[in-house]
Amino acid sequence: MASGVQGRPLTVVLLGGGTVGASVARLLVENSRDIQERVGAPVTLSAVAVRDLAKARPGIPGELLTDDAAAAATSGADIVVELIGGIEPARTLILSAMAAGSSVVTANKALLAEDGATLYEAAGRQGVDLYFEAAVAGAIPLLRPLRESLAGDTVTKVMGIVNGSTNYMLTRMDEEGVEYGEVFDEATALGYLEADPSLDIDGHDAAAKAAILAELAFHTRVTLDDVHCEGISTVTANDVRAAQQMGFVIKLLAVAERTADGVIVRVHPTMLPRDHPLASVRGSFNAVFVEAESAGEVMFYGRGAGGDPTASAVLGDLVTAARNRVTGGLGPGESTYSKLPILPIGNAVTRYYVNLSVADKPGVLATIANAFSDNGVSIQVVRQDGHGDEASLVVRTHRATDAALHRTMDRLGELDMVRKVLGVMRVEGEAGD
Amino acid sequence: MASGVQGRPLTVVLLGGGTVGASVARLLVENSRDIQERVGAPVTLSAVAVRDLAKARPGIPGELLTDDAAAAATSGADIVVELIGGIEPARTLILSAMAAGSSVVTANKALLAEDGATLYEAAGRQGVDLYFEAAVAGAIPLLRPLRESLAGDTVTKVMGIVNGSTNYMLTRMDEEGVEYGEVFDEATALGYLEADPSLDIDGHDAAAKAAILAELAFHTRVTLDDVHCEGISTVTANDVRAAQQMGFVIKLLAVAERTADGVIVRVHPTMLPRDHPLASVRGSFNAVFVEAESAGEVMFYGRGAGGDPTASAVLGDLVTAARNRVTGGLGPGESTYSKLPILPIGNAVTRYYVNLSVADKPGVLATIANAFSDNGVSIQVVRQDGHGDEASLVVRTHRATDAALHRTMDRLGELDMVRKVLGVMRVEGEAGD
Repeated sequence: MASGVQGRPLTVVLLGGGTVGASVARLLVENSRDIQERVGAPVTLSAVAVRDLAKARPGIPGELLTDDAAAAATSGADIVVELIGGIEPARTLILSAMAAGSSVVTANKALLAEDGATLYEAAGRQGVDLYFEAAVAGAIPLLRPLRESLAGDTVTKVMGIVNGSTNYMLTRMDEEGVEYGEVFDEATALGYLEADPSLDIDGHDAAAKAAILAELAFHTRVTLDDVHCEGISTVTANDVRAAQQMGFVIKLLAVAERTADGVIVRVHPTMLPRDHPLASVRGSFNAVFVEAESAGEVMFYGRGAGGDPTASAVLGDLVTAARNRVTGGLGPGESTYSKLPILPIGNAVTRYYVNLSVADKPGVLATIANAFSDNGVSIQVVRQDGHGDEASLVVRTHRATDAALHRTMDRLGELDMVRKVLGVMRVEGEAGD
Repeated sequence: MASGVQGRPLTVVLLGGGTVGASVARLLVENSRDIQERVGAPVTLSAVAVRDLAKARPGIPGELLTDDAAAAATSGADIVVELIGGIEPARTLILSAMAAGSSVVTANKALLAEDGATLYEAAGRQGVDLYFEAAVAGAIPLLRPLRESLAGDTVTKVMGIVNGSTNYMLTRMDEEGVEYGEVFDEATALGYLEADPSLDIDGHDAAAKAAILAELAFHTRVTLDDVHCEGISTVTANDVRAAQQMGFVIKLLAVAERTADGVIVRVHPTMLPRDHPLASVRGSFNAVFVEAESAGEVMFYGRGAGGDPTASAVLGDLVTAARNRVTGGLGPGESTYSKLPILPIGNAVTRYYVNLSVADKPGVLATIANAFSDNGVSIQVVRQDGHGDEASLVVRTHRATDAALHRTMDRLGELDMVRKVLGVMRVEGEAGD
């Protein structure tokens, strides 16, 4: 925006005064001169709606606080920033803000994944913007590149680490060799998990983000219900050790892929080769790989959460929405024209790791190998370990459908010589995948 | 863009029918249905201007070819894509296209780095768009994130590998232990270098990209002349070996940083710790780190060159510029309001590696240590190797200004016991930098 061309002052209402809201409010003031230059008009915070007026909120001017979110949302501000989260009252507030002519910036992944269509539809009808970069992978510019930079390309796969809490836990298990229960207690004590920890550990948070990414990548409506979701609570120290012995590391991945037949979106623990770029994403960091037909592989890496990083993404959207107010432009709306079918998880094709406790007697390997090949799963590597009660067999397969692997596991369950399934996990990122 | 809302057909003229141009032409046809949906109007290629009409150009419909670039540029197309490169006639063609009301998409890093202001000024005056994602780091979405996603943040440093040819050469030197001359001959034979190889090996290509990145990051006009530039031809197998012994790798980095006093932009061979994310960027890949006050560190990684990857970036810009035609919006123009001073390289603060051939006699280390400390450079690690004529001393310093290091090197040059300077290189990316 050319400096000096200045429009009328723009107003911003914040719904939610938590960690991210406080950062947004503070940065709007601290960076007001820069924001004014970049927008082409002054941008002023006019209200911050919070639930509890009595709570101390450093960084937010007291006179802007209100506990009437509905009134704030419909005050006709140029931009309403929704940082409450969850489905209601967030959805009603966003729709009422749009009805009052406000553009909306939100970080609400749950609402977008469950009912983004309603928000997009209202934004389109009202001619206002809907931006939500902060909903996925915090500070990492990811949605704008997908929606705009890659708009002339055909995205075939999006694969990433989009939940920092579980990545922290899996990193600790990898580094310390401890069991899941121990890192869960540690993450809880450190306050790293959502109030409902199931959102993190059962993969629901990652699944919401996967749905959002898949919709943008494939121009096809994808909601949370379309995402196959497995969490990390079944990952054992034994799995971690087995992965290490093979040169792999375990990550909770969100994967959205486009096959010849349709779209598959899944979240699950995954073994990755240690030299894969996602393998070195440790602790609470996020990273996302995008594969496109012309661009090839592109990776984005950064902080996936935290007040200031998330506020950075919110403010980037806010500046863009504000610029659109000044120039009369409008950002991209929902794009679901491709209407690709959503395929069930049985169609997903990956490699697999299978770890079995087996009877220590001749012919075990041949029998088990048959169970795989009879069900259409080709074995890549197999290793026999231990003797007697400790005898185990670790198998890595070539690429096979989830359905074929499930048939194989059913068959293995019928064999007396298989005493116990110690672990089963998908494997991604090997050369040739 | 809502599917079904369709505007009038939009026209595109390509200036340049080389590798990238041929990819753009082919993809415009192959992906025309997707592009139409994403733009909200059909997008049609109306002309491709080339120098030699006789040359076979697979993928480009023959009836679109013309050798009259000036007429094609001023035909009033909605979007003119400039892929000729260099200063003239590219600049004149772009300006005449804008004067005719066309928005412009270009990959021309040289022109943008030398005289971007003229292009921006013309675009602003004409009310047309100027996009140039493909000018830096090919397929990697980088400029749009800098200009838009991080528009609410304060960028403090941009550091990256933005020249694939030299990264390929340095990767080979690291892997094979060979001398620079050998990899230069190899890269030449493989056709990896520009027609004028100096653009790659002397860092000029990276410097142009650094100028573009710095201007966007710091909202300050930065041109090629503002960039301190050193190439890779002085890097020896001995430097590579010394780096390996210390756990480092040598990369040609483009660095743009904002200090309390102003902006410093530099391109030079750099030692990086092997566990730094940029250290594992091998071969012809590009990657760029961005540090911002709120977002923290963000990294972008992907293919920096090649017909299809570069075409992907061009087409992303083309879709955006076309959408703006449909919606009446306008992308961001030049933003140089910050007007930060550009500082000389002497102000740059980094760590250093210094490798000296020294006389093998008592007191050498003390004398040399004094040469550093007397000039304000603190030594972090020093290692003495060999004996007699082979005696050498490898020093890594703490952070010091370039000016202080130069004073130190001048003093070392006066010492009889320093027989030869075997290598001097900046070191980046250590913890605490």
